[in-house]
Amino acid sequence: MSLPVYAFLGPEGTFTDAALRAMTAGVEIETLPTVDVPAALSAVRSGEADFAVVAIENTVEGGVTATLDTLAEGAPLVILEEYVIPVAFELVARDARTMASIGRVAAHAHGLAQCRRWISTNLPDVIQVAATSNSAAAVALADGTADFDAALAPPGTAKRLGLHLVTDGVADNSKAATRFVRVGRPGALPPVTGADKTTLVVHLPHDRAGALLEMLEQFAVRGVNLSRIESRPIGDKPGEYAFSIDALAHVGEARMAEVLVGLKRTCPVVTFLGSYPAAHGVPTPVARGTSDVDYDAAHAWVERIRSASGS
Amino acid sequence: MSLPVYAFLGPEGTFTDAALRAMTAGVEIETLPTVDVPAALSAVRSGEADFAVVAIENTVEGGVTATLDTLAEGAPLVILEEYVIPVAFELVARDARTMASIGRVAAHAHGLAQCRRWISTNLPDVIQVAATSNSAAAVALADGTADFDAALAPPGTAKRLGLHLVTDGVADNSKAATRFVRVGRPGALPPVTGADKTTLVVHLPHDRAGALLEMLEQFAVRGVNLSRIESRPIGDKPGEYAFSIDALAHVGEARMAEVLVGLKRTCPVVTFLGSYPAAHGVPTPVARGTSDVDYDAAHAWVERIRSASGS
Amino acid sequence: MSLPVYAFLGPEGTFTDAALRAMTAGVEIETLPTVDVPAALSAVRSGEADFAVVAIENTVEGGVTATLDTLAEGAPLVILEEYVIPVAFELVARDARTMASIGRVAAHAHGLAQCRRWISTNLPDVIQVAATSNSAAAVALADGTADFDAALAPPGTAKRLGLHLVTDGVADNSKAATRFVRVGRPGALPPVTGADKTTLVVHLPHDRAGALLEMLEQFAVRGVNLSRIESRPIGDKPGEYAFSIDALAHVGEARMAEVLVGLKRTCPVVTFLGSYPAAHGVPTPVARGTSDVDYDAAHAWVERIRSASGS
Amino acid sequence: MSLPVYAFLGPEGTFTDAALRAMTAGVEIETLPTVDVPAALSAVRSGEADFAVVAIENTVEGGVTATLDTLAEGAPLVILEEYVIPVAFELVARDARTMASIGRVAAHAHGLAQCRRWISTNLPDVIQVAATSNSAAAVALADGTADFDAALAPPGTAKRLGLHLVTDGVADNSKAATRFVRVGRPGALPPVTGADKTTLVVHLPHDRAGALLEMLEQFAVRGVNLSRIESRPIGDKPGEYAFSIDALAHVGEARMAEVLVGLKRTCPVVTFLGSYPAAHGVPTPVARGTSDVDYDAAHAWVERIRSASGS
Repeated sequence: MSLPVYAFLGPEGTFTDAALRAMTAGVEIETLPTVDVPAALSAVRSGEADFAVVAIENTVEGGVTATLDTLAEGAPLVILEEYVIPVAFELVARDARTMASIGRVAAHAHGLAQCRRWISTNLPDVIQVAATSNSAAAVALADGTADFDAALAPPGTAKRLGLHLVTDGVADNSKAATRFVRVGRPGALPPVTGADKTTLVVHLPHDRAGALLEMLEQFAVRGVNLSRIESRPIGDKPGEYAFSIDALAHVGEARMAEVLVGLKRTCPVVTFLGSYPAAHGVPTPVARGTSDVDYDAAHAWVERIRSASGS
Repeated sequence: MSLPVYAFLGPEGTFTDAALRAMTAGVEIETLPTVDVPAALSAVRSGEADFAVVAIENTVEGGVTATLDTLAEGAPLVILEEYVIPVAFELVARDARTMASIGRVAAHAHGLAQCRRWISTNLPDVIQVAATSNSAAAVALADGTADFDAALAPPGTAKRLGLHLVTDGVADNSKAATRFVRVGRPGALPPVTGADKTTLVVHLPHDRAGALLEMLEQFAVRGVNLSRIESRPIGDKPGEYAFSIDALAHVGEARMAEVLVGLKRTCPVVTFLGSYPAAHGVPTPVARGTSDVDYDAAHAWVERIRSASGS
Repeated sequence: MSLPVYAFLGPEGTFTDAALRAMTAGVEIETLPTVDVPAALSAVRSGEADFAVVAIENTVEGGVTATLDTLAEGAPLVILEEYVIPVAFELVARDARTMASIGRVAAHAHGLAQCRRWISTNLPDVIQVAATSNSAAAVALADGTADFDAALAPPGTAKRLGLHLVTDGVADNSKAATRFVRVGRPGALPPVTGADKTTLVVHLPHDRAGALLEMLEQFAVRGVNLSRIESRPIGDKPGEYAFSIDALAHVGEARMAEVLVGLKRTCPVVTFLGSYPAAHGVPTPVARGTSDVDYDAAHAWVERIRSASGS
Repeated sequence: MSLPVYAFLGPEGTFTDAALRAMTAGVEIETLPTVDVPAALSAVRSGEADFAVVAIENTVEGGVTATLDTLAEGAPLVILEEYVIPVAFELVARDARTMASIGRVAAHAHGLAQCRRWISTNLPDVIQVAATSNSAAAVALADGTADFDAALAPPGTAKRLGLHLVTDGVADNSKAATRFVRVGRPGALPPVTGADKTTLVVHLPHDRAGALLEMLEQFAVRGVNLSRIESRPIGDKPGEYAFSIDALAHVGEARMAEVLVGLKRTCPVVTFLGSYPAAHGVPTPVARGTSDVDYDAAHAWVERIRSASGS
């Protein structure tokens, strides 16, 4: 029997690769590195891969704004799992050495930028060398072609390439993190855990003060909170927007299902991009009157009123 | 087989009696006059009467604020029909005479008040005599015990008592009207007509700015308009209110059923007082995305998403 | 110097008269009884009276729905004070007697209705006689023309007319109360007390689901609660409404002033009917961010931003 | 007299440089290239530069999510102008040649990704070479050190470096565009044009269903539309968010000033990041009742009511 195939933004040694390894720890898989996020998603759509692991927020490697847009367009895909990893680099060298002996350090320009304050504090006199990717610099160290002494690279690089780990946890902002998701073709939804997210793309029916408010009322009247909302302009005209939304409930719960019914009735486009466990695992508080039990009781009451019309 | 029994605020000859006759024209019924509105409703609750016809808004005879409260308390009753009649009096006399020859005119104090401007214009020198009820004055004329020449009485009085109709349409405000309803025990609901009302009593969950707003959002997100809303203080503490509401939809329509589900989930008390045809008969506009067809399509879409969780 | 003239719904001995006496206790005034509420208000508009005391809610004597409408139409009037009195009657007789010896009791039909349960419990075999007004029955007892033994009358009647007080506190509902207001011509507003009401009439801009919601958002975003809201149809067409509103703040407070600005901008008709101390005297909780201090600080911040625009 | 100094994400030849040139066309300036966006903003804060031009949305070079966050933290900065340029590359070579003769093409990995479909259509057999930046590849062509035949580079590169322009307008998505802003220290605001934006960062007061809704009501009740909203998690706890917002009005307009007052009163953090002309130049529709004239009239009306309070 064939192994499940995971597409991801390659090559090996990126932050995405690190997330992929963490999400599939202990499971035998086959990997399919791609040149960018759209290619990873296409591989799932075409059946070449079973899943894709892609960054969806605040990534080191960039290219994230495209992820949500690409997910929403084309054959349906759904998010099945999310995983958050801190943005922190390893400082790796070919041989054991101290920071004081590092004269030149390499990384992707974004990596250098994200560690700017750390470098100026810890390696004040170092010469910075831009590399084509975070992993390329480490690979050059490993194969002996580097014209620099050390590199900043994603976690796990030293071990993977047999390099010396000078230090890890290199970051300017200890709270910075990137969110990755595992994406697949629609099928069985992950079960309700009580700490779930539902990801949606919603287009507003028209442009007027209050249209956004009315859309959000569909969530509020059912006690569903959002954990993320981002507007995106649509097309050429000012005033037409899509909204990318993470809501804190699972479509398997009545309140989220009713939100979807409300949105579907009133908005020209509603794209369902999955219900899945939130990475933080903190159970979502359920407001009074919004549990499945509350919904069942209320529906039963209304049905009793309506069924009297039966006879 | 026994005739249906209608309780109403008697005696014969009141505006309520006129409404009752209009609502049951051509049907053989039995009538049960009561001393006040609560007594009429009690007669239906106890089974002594099948229906009650009671004024619910802007009545000439008073006692209306009690109607909605009394409806909402005790064994369930529902409104089955509404009927609106203009507030206009007949000026009746024992014998044929002109207005100029009227020296004293009698009516209930409310009747005199409601025709004050008409009287000062048309009967400027008349002496006004307060009677115990609008019909009592007319009856006194008919049986010859009156110490006045004419009376203001509800429409139909001249014909009913064999009195002379001096003029009709006597009113200060040509648009004033009273709304009456036919009330019965819960059972088969009147069918959906497309021009319906649903009457509710709703208690707010707590006292804070925005609690009323949140309750009304339950209507707005489903595109249901209100045609009447009235707050009533509950109990002793400032800040606790019940709301008496007429909404322009029928519980047999999905949008109204969903409003009821939303209210039932979130408000401590929701009393359903009936879905019935609006007297004005003007079809209620159905906002985009709120028809039963829209609801069915949206529910089917969400069910497809959820059922994938099945396997 | 002339005394202030108070118009009220007469004659002496009504509940309105009782409210007027309570509101002007210890002050020398002149009274002007009128035949109905519109006449009392007209007397103030014309200058014939300085103030009117009129029932505004849940009255025993009826005629209340008209009060708010009449206030809102014609030359401007404002509410200056409110006063709430319990709806409870005195049972009075010409001479000292027990309840057991009462064979016939008289009152206005509304009075009899409001005490129906009390009468059936305490005077089970009594014959009820309808009188033209609550005070008329007592007056007939006092002048010896009564064909009944006792009367139900407003508080203070026994003392005022020298009748025997058989018992007081006669009422079916110990919480029933009537709200009266003192009305005058616009001028100095009563000072802010922290427990104030503002009474308004607001017409909605158009008929659509959500128009009411948008109007109430003007209150909610400034943290102003309502203590009363009642819809009134306007004109002939279904779907056009006025709202009669009591809001729990004083126009002298920034949050209420801003609500008025918001309503005035967006609603075709906004009528200000006064800011005055609430009868209950319970200080209105001030939501975070809505005090005058909060408004002043926020305005100052925005002015600093705007004034940078210099010239 | 010294020239105004503009900081920007260097080196020369980036998209940001192209935007800077377009925004300052015809004006003599001094430029200060920086290694990243935070450095450009720091240069303005420190006084080293007068202005910074930075990408704020959908950039080719990445690093945008940081822009808005960095703007909002530290000494106050404001946006003074925005400029949108299409994301389209030039295909440049050292010497005149056709596309058919290109064997290897270089660009930053993001640039290659953004032109992936164009390359597979127009240069199907080409070998792609990743460069450290979009301008680095072109510079290597110009100075003869390139091991590739052509490069994808920002508009204007061929002319600037004296390279051959093979073709321009290279892009997968003809509508893709990047938004740049000119940032300065607070001072005189740009004048109101009728097609303006105001950029804000707002923290929500607490985490509950409806908190976002209440914040947006502050905009809706004043008829102010949003053209962009993005949530950002704050700190460590799920449920705490900041919102980055572009609103379609100028703080010099009453409706926007009042929105700011409302936000300031009710949200723990409100950061004003500028009012400036929208790049699209389309006049913002002004909803009924929200013009400065409407505000002035409503304020005057309320002031008349309040000033009656005399003293």
